[in-house]
Amino acid sequence: MLKGRFTLPADNSLGEKTKEIAKLWGSDAVRDCDGTELPENPKQYGKVYNTYFIVRGDNDWARLHPEEAQRIFLLTERHLAVCDKVEIEIMKTFLKDEFDPDCSYLDRWEVYDRTTGILHSDWSYDQKTGIVTVLNAKKFHEYTVSFLARITWHPVQIYNYLTNEWTCEKQLTYDPAFPHTKEYIKRHMEEWCLQNPDTDVVRFTTFLYQFTLIFNQLGKEKQVEWFGYAQTANPIHIDNFYKKTGIKLTAEDFVDEGHYNNIFKAPTQKFKMYMEFIEEFVCETVAELVEICHKHGKEAMMFLGDDWIGSEPYGEHFKKMNLDAVVGSVGGGVTVRMLSEIPHVKYHEGRYLPYFFPDTFFDGNEDNAVAELNRNWLTARRANMRKPLDRMGFGGYLSLAAKFPKFIERVAQIADEFRTVYDAIDNKKPYCRLKVAILNAWGKKRSWMSHMVAHELWYQSIYSYQGILEAISGLPVDVEFLSFDEVLGGVPEGIDVIINAGDAYTSFSGGKAWLDERLQASIREFVYNGGGFIGVGEPTACSANGRYFQLADVLGVDKEIGYTLSNDKYNIQKIAHDLTDGMTAFDYGEDKKNIYALDGTSVLDIAFSDRFKRNVNVGEVKMAVNSFGKGKSFYITGIPYSFENSRLLYKAMCYVSGKDLHVCYSSNVNTECNYYPTSSKYAVVNNADSEQVTDFYDVNGNKQTITLKPMEIKWIEA
Amino acid sequence: MLKGRFTLPADNSLGEKTKEIAKLWGSDAVRDCDGTELPENPKQYGKVYNTYFIVRGDNDWARLHPEEAQRIFLLTERHLAVCDKVEIEIMKTFLKDEFDPDCSYLDRWEVYDRTTGILHSDWSYDQKTGIVTVLNAKKFHEYTVSFLARITWHPVQIYNYLTNEWTCEKQLTYDPAFPHTKEYIKRHMEEWCLQNPDTDVVRFTTFLYQFTLIFNQLGKEKQVEWFGYAQTANPIHIDNFYKKTGIKLTAEDFVDEGHYNNIFKAPTQKFKMYMEFIEEFVCETVAELVEICHKHGKEAMMFLGDDWIGSEPYGEHFKKMNLDAVVGSVGGGVTVRMLSEIPHVKYHEGRYLPYFFPDTFFDGNEDNAVAELNRNWLTARRANMRKPLDRMGFGGYLSLAAKFPKFIERVAQIADEFRTVYDAIDNKKPYCRLKVAILNAWGKKRSWMSHMVAHELWYQSIYSYQGILEAISGLPVDVEFLSFDEVLGGVPEGIDVIINAGDAYTSFSGGKAWLDERLQASIREFVYNGGGFIGVGEPTACSANGRYFQLADVLGVDKEIGYTLSNDKYNIQKIAHDLTDGMTAFDYGEDKKNIYALDGTSVLDIAFSDRFKRNVNVGEVKMAVNSFGKGKSFYITGIPYSFENSRLLYKAMCYVSGKDLHVCYSSNVNTECNYYPTSSKYAVVNNADSEQVTDFYDVNGNKQTITLKPMEIKWIEA
Repeated sequence: MLKGRFTLPADNSLGEKTKEIAKLWGSDAVRDCDGTELPENPKQYGKVYNTYFIVRGDNDWARLHPEEAQRIFLLTERHLAVCDKVEIEIMKTFLKDEFDPDCSYLDRWEVYDRTTGILHSDWSYDQKTGIVTVLNAKKFHEYTVSFLARITWHPVQIYNYLTNEWTCEKQLTYDPAFPHTKEYIKRHMEEWCLQNPDTDVVRFTTFLYQFTLIFNQLGKEKQVEWFGYAQTANPIHIDNFYKKTGIKLTAEDFVDEGHYNNIFKAPTQKFKMYMEFIEEFVCETVAELVEICHKHGKEAMMFLGDDWIGSEPYGEHFKKMNLDAVVGSVGGGVTVRMLSEIPHVKYHEGRYLPYFFPDTFFDGNEDNAVAELNRNWLTARRANMRKPLDRMGFGGYLSLAAKFPKFIERVAQIADEFRTVYDAIDNKKPYCRLKVAILNAWGKKRSWMSHMVAHELWYQSIYSYQGILEAISGLPVDVEFLSFDEVLGGVPEGIDVIINAGDAYTSFSGGKAWLDERLQASIREFVYNGGGFIGVGEPTACSANGRYFQLADVLGVDKEIGYTLSNDKYNIQKIAHDLTDGMTAFDYGEDKKNIYALDGTSVLDIAFSDRFKRNVNVGEVKMAVNSFGKGKSFYITGIPYSFENSRLLYKAMCYVSGKDLHVCYSSNVNTECNYYPTSSKYAVVNNADSEQVTDFYDVNGNKQTITLKPMEIKWIEA
Repeated sequence: MLKGRFTLPADNSLGEKTKEIAKLWGSDAVRDCDGTELPENPKQYGKVYNTYFIVRGDNDWARLHPEEAQRIFLLTERHLAVCDKVEIEIMKTFLKDEFDPDCSYLDRWEVYDRTTGILHSDWSYDQKTGIVTVLNAKKFHEYTVSFLARITWHPVQIYNYLTNEWTCEKQLTYDPAFPHTKEYIKRHMEEWCLQNPDTDVVRFTTFLYQFTLIFNQLGKEKQVEWFGYAQTANPIHIDNFYKKTGIKLTAEDFVDEGHYNNIFKAPTQKFKMYMEFIEEFVCETVAELVEICHKHGKEAMMFLGDDWIGSEPYGEHFKKMNLDAVVGSVGGGVTVRMLSEIPHVKYHEGRYLPYFFPDTFFDGNEDNAVAELNRNWLTARRANMRKPLDRMGFGGYLSLAAKFPKFIERVAQIADEFRTVYDAIDNKKPYCRLKVAILNAWGKKRSWMSHMVAHELWYQSIYSYQGILEAISGLPVDVEFLSFDEVLGGVPEGIDVIINAGDAYTSFSGGKAWLDERLQASIREFVYNGGGFIGVGEPTACSANGRYFQLADVLGVDKEIGYTLSNDKYNIQKIAHDLTDGMTAFDYGEDKKNIYALDGTSVLDIAFSDRFKRNVNVGEVKMAVNSFGKGKSFYITGIPYSFENSRLLYKAMCYVSGKDLHVCYSSNVNTECNYYPTSSKYAVVNNADSEQVTDFYDVNGNKQTITLKPMEIKWIEA
C-alpha cells in the first residue's frame, strides 16, 4: 500500500476509527470542515490545514468601519417613461440585506437612457424613499439607475442562510482598499498565526473579492458570474486606476448595459487594464499576508472558489503572492486541469466528490455513494493521467463515510491508483501526439475556464462547447490557450491545431475580432501551410464583407443568415469518411441550424427537414472537413462530452494536422492510451464500468489486442 | 350555370370538343400557350389573348446591335492571395453562353479585397485569356473581380433549354435604355399590332428587365432573386442616374458583397433611389407601348413573372403604364392577394394549377390531377373570398385535360364557385374584424411579397414566416404593409395590430432600423395606448444597449445570445391560456432557440432540454403573451401555415387588440367565416375535404351549429 498525497477531512467525533481510515487511505494531512472539529493532537495525522478568511468573519471590525465595506455598482431594471418624469425605486429588485445604497458617492451614480444608450444628467435621489426621479425624460424611452452600494452581507453566506433558515449573524464585508482595513488584515493575520501554532497550512477560503453574486428582493440568486469583477468597484480603486492610467471609470464601465463585463463578452481594452490593476492590488495585498504565514512557518493555500477575484491564477501577477498551494473542488477533467496547471505554486490539491454529507450518506445509499465516487474519479482520472493534481482529498463528515465500508474500501483503491498514476508520470510531460491551441478573446488568462457559467454548472447554452475542453483534459495532446491578439502577427511555432468554438459574437467565438485582417491572414497562412483548424458552433462568425463565418473559406462552411438564400447550394451530399467511420451515434448537443457547405467541402453529416421539397438550398450541414492549401479544417455544430465525441475530436485533430492516428492509440472508444516516456510505460485505460477489448498501438504503431477489466488501467512496459 | 371570368387555354388540335368545354367552364376568352396554336376563328370563344415579348425574341435585331444587349455586373468567386499576385479567371463559374464580359466599359470593373472590404486599384485584364491579374495583393487576403457583362442569352430560356435539351436558337437580349432599341421596340409594337388584328389582349410576357437569374459554368442555376435589379445595370442608366441624383453607382453597388441587394437585406437609401429611377424608366417606356396597343383597340396585360423588374405593381410609377390587366400564376393565397390587390388596372387574372402538361395528365393519373386542382383551389379560395381575382384560367394543352372527364367536371364546379364568390363580394370590402399592419423595411412596395425567395418557392428558412401571410390572405382582417420609415412619427390611425416577423438582421425583422429611437418609441406608444404587437422569430432583433430584441419590454421575451447567461431566469412556467386552449399540435416550423421570458410575461409554451439539470436558466420559450400599458403582445418562434396555426394567429390578433373573438366566427379550425355586408351574406367555408361541424357566430355574436360538406361553402343570409 502506498502512502501520502491525501488529505483527510478529520472528525473529532469518530475517535480511534479515524486512525484506521487514515492508514487505509494513506493520508498524510488533516483538514477541518464546516461543522467539524479536528481531533485531539491533529499532528499525529500529518500536516494540519485550517481555513482562514480575510475580508469577512469579523463583524466587530466591520461595524467599527462601515465606510470600509466592499462596494458594487448595481443597475436597476429598465423603467419606461410614459411622461417626462420617471420614478425609479432603486432597491426594488435587490436584496436589502445584501446591499445598501451609498449616498456618500452620489456623484458616481448614473442615469442612462437605455433606448439611446446615452447618459442622462437630469435626476435627483431621495434618500428617504430610495427613489431616483428622472426629469426631462423622453417619452417611451427606458431609463435605468446605476448606483453604488455597500455590500452589507457576504454573498456566499446568503444562499445557505436563506435556504437553510440559519439564524447566525450575517457576515459583513470589509475592503483592504481602504486604509484602516489594509492595516487591520495584516494585524489580524499576525495574531491568528500566533493563536494557531498547530496549523501547517493556512487555507485561504477568501482572498479579497468575491465573484459577482447578486440576490434579488426575494433572496433568490439574481446574477452570478464566477469571473465577475463587479464587487471590486471601490472608489479608491477607481481613483487610483485613474491616477495610474488616466482612464476615469464610471458606473457604466462596471454595469456594462447590465452585462457586468461577463466572460462571454470580449473584454474591452479598458476593462482588461482594470482587471490587471485589480490583480496587482490583490496579489500584492495577499503577498503581505502570505509573508506573515511563511514567517510563522506556515504554508499558504488558496481556495479557488469564492473570493478569488483578482488572483487570476493564469495571470501575470499571481506569482507575486508566493503561494505554496491551491485547492479546489473537482467537478470533472476540466477542473482538474484548471487546478493542476496553475503555475507558481508547489502543489495542487483536489477535493473529490461526493462530499461526506447526509444527502448522500444516509442508510441504504451506499451503492449510490460508491457509484458517484466512481463517476467522479473516472472523469477526473482522465485529466490526472495527463497532468495530475499533486494531492487528493475529500470534504464533509468522516463519521458519515465511516458507516459505508464498501465506500471506504473503494476510496482506498482510488487513492492507491491516484498515487500509482502520479508516480508513473513523475512530474514529467506525458507523450503528446500534437499541440492544440484554443483560440478566443481571453487566451491564457482563462486557461481551462472557457464557456463556463458559475463554476462549471450545467447550462444549456454551453455544454456543447464545454465538451471540447472536457475531452481535451484527458487526450494525449499538448494544450495552449491563445488570445486573438497573440496570433495577429502569426501563429506561434509548434502549434498543430487551432480550435475556435462558440456562439457568434461571444468572446469565445470572437465576433468583431475577426474583422482584423491580421487575424484572418494569420490563421489562413497557418492552415495554408499545413496547420489544422477546428471550428465548433459559430466559429469566426461576424457578419461582414459578404460572409458570416469570416474564415468560411478555411472551414468550407458558412451559416445562412438570410442574405444568401438566393444563392444555389448544391453541396448537400454526405460522404463516407475515416472520421465518422464506426461512429454509432451523432450528438451535436445544442447544435446549429442553417449551416451550408461551400463547393469542394466534404460534408460528413447533414440533416434534411421533413418538409424537404427541393433538392437545393436545403439540408443543414452538421459536420464537414475541408482542405485549404496544405492544411485542413474540421467543422462541427456542437460537441458535448461523451466517449464517442471525445474520440471524434481527437481523430479530427489528428486528421487536420496530418498525424497518423494509430500511434499510442487504443481503438475502442471506451478506452484511451497514455504513454509516459520517462517511466517507459503505457497506460491503457478503461473509462467504462464494463470489460472492454481494444487494439492498442504503441509509439511505433505496433498493435496488440488487449482486454481490460471494468475501469482498469493496464500498465504496459515500453 | 354562370358565365364568364374564365380564360381557356385553347388548343387547335382539339377541334369541336373545345366548344363543349368552353361552354361547360363558362369561358369568355382564349389564350395561346407555348407549343399550341389558337383554334380557327378564335373570336368565337370571346376575347383573344396573345403573348408579346419586348426585349427578346428578335435575334436579328439583337445581332444588328450587339452593343445594345442587356448588362449585368457579375462578381467572381473569392480568390486567395498566397503571394502578392492573384490571377482570376473571371468567367470560370459562369455560363459562357449567358454572359460575355464587356471590355468596352473596363473602367467600370472593380477588384475588391474582400478581407478588408477595400477597393483595390492595381490590376489588369487580359481579354485573350479572360484573366484579371491582381498585383500588390496582400498575402492571405481574398480578392474578387466585379465585371460588367453583356447578357447574351435570355435567362428564362436557359433552364428549359438545358434541361429539355432544346436545340432552338438561343434568344439574345436587347435593352431599350440604348437609343436604337428604344426606337425599335415602339416600331415593332406598332407592326405587331397591325399584324395581329384578332388580338384583344396583348399579354406582355416580358417587360424590360428579367429578375436576377444567373447560371453557373455547368448550366445550373447559381443565383436567383425574383426581386433582383442586377440585370438593369446598364451604363446608360448609371450615367443618367448620376446626372439626376449626383450619385455615382459603381459595380459594388450592384454586386453588394455578393448579395446583389436581395430582398432579405434592408435596402440602402441609394439603392431605393436607384430602384425608383429604374421604375420610372420602365413604366414610362412600357407606357408608350401600351399606348400603341390602346391605339389599336387592344388591351395591355402584364405577366407578373419574368421580366417584371422595375414595374413594381405596388410602387409609385406603376400607374403610369396605364395597363388594363395583370395575370400571374396562383401558388396559394398569398399570390392571389399579391395579384388581386394590384392597383391601377381594370382586372386581375390568375392561372390556377395544375398546368395541363404531360407530367400530370398521363393515363391513370386523373385522381391525382383532381386532387392537385382541389388543393390549389382550396388554398386560393381563402384569399379569393377576401379579395378575389377578377378572372381565372389555366395553362397548357387543353387536349390533355380533355381526356380526364372528372377533371373537366371539377373545373366547371370550381369556375361556378369562383363566380358565385365573386358576385357575393361584388367588388366591396368584406367585413374585417380588425386591421393588421405588416412592419418591415420594404412596406407597401413589397405588399404580399415578404419572406419570398424565387417566386414563393418552398425554402427552409422562410416557410415559418410565410405562414403569416398565407394565413392572413384568407383571414377576415384588413391588411396594410408598412415600412419602418412610415411609423417613425407614429403609427398611422386605424391600425389594431402590428406584426414584425423574421430572422435577425434581415429586412423583414429590421436589424439596425430598430436602433432608431423614434421607431422604438413609436411602437411602444402604440402598444402602451392599447395597440397589439405580434413578433415572430427574431422580431426587433439588433444587439445593442443591453438587449437583443430591442422591444423585449413590449414582447416580454428576449433571446439569449450568451451575454446574459449569468442572469437567473425564473419565468419558466407554462400557463393555460385561451389562445392555446384546444390546440392539439404545436408547429413552430424552423423554430428559434434560446428565447427566454422576462418577469411578468405569460409563457404559453416552453420546451425543456432532455439534458435539463437545473431549475433556472433552462427552458426555451416558444410562445408568450405580455401586457404593456393598455396594449398586449404575442410572441411565437415561428408559425408555418396550417389550419390550426392560421386560427392561432387570428386568435392572437384578436387577443392583442382586445377584440372579442366570437364575432363572424366559425369555431372549427377547419372552417372559416366571411361576412359580406353589401350582399348581406355570410359564407361559412369548409377548407377540409371531410365533413365538419362548427359553431358559427354572426356579427352580433349569435351562435348556431352547422354542418358543412367536404369543401363546402355554406351561404347564410344575414
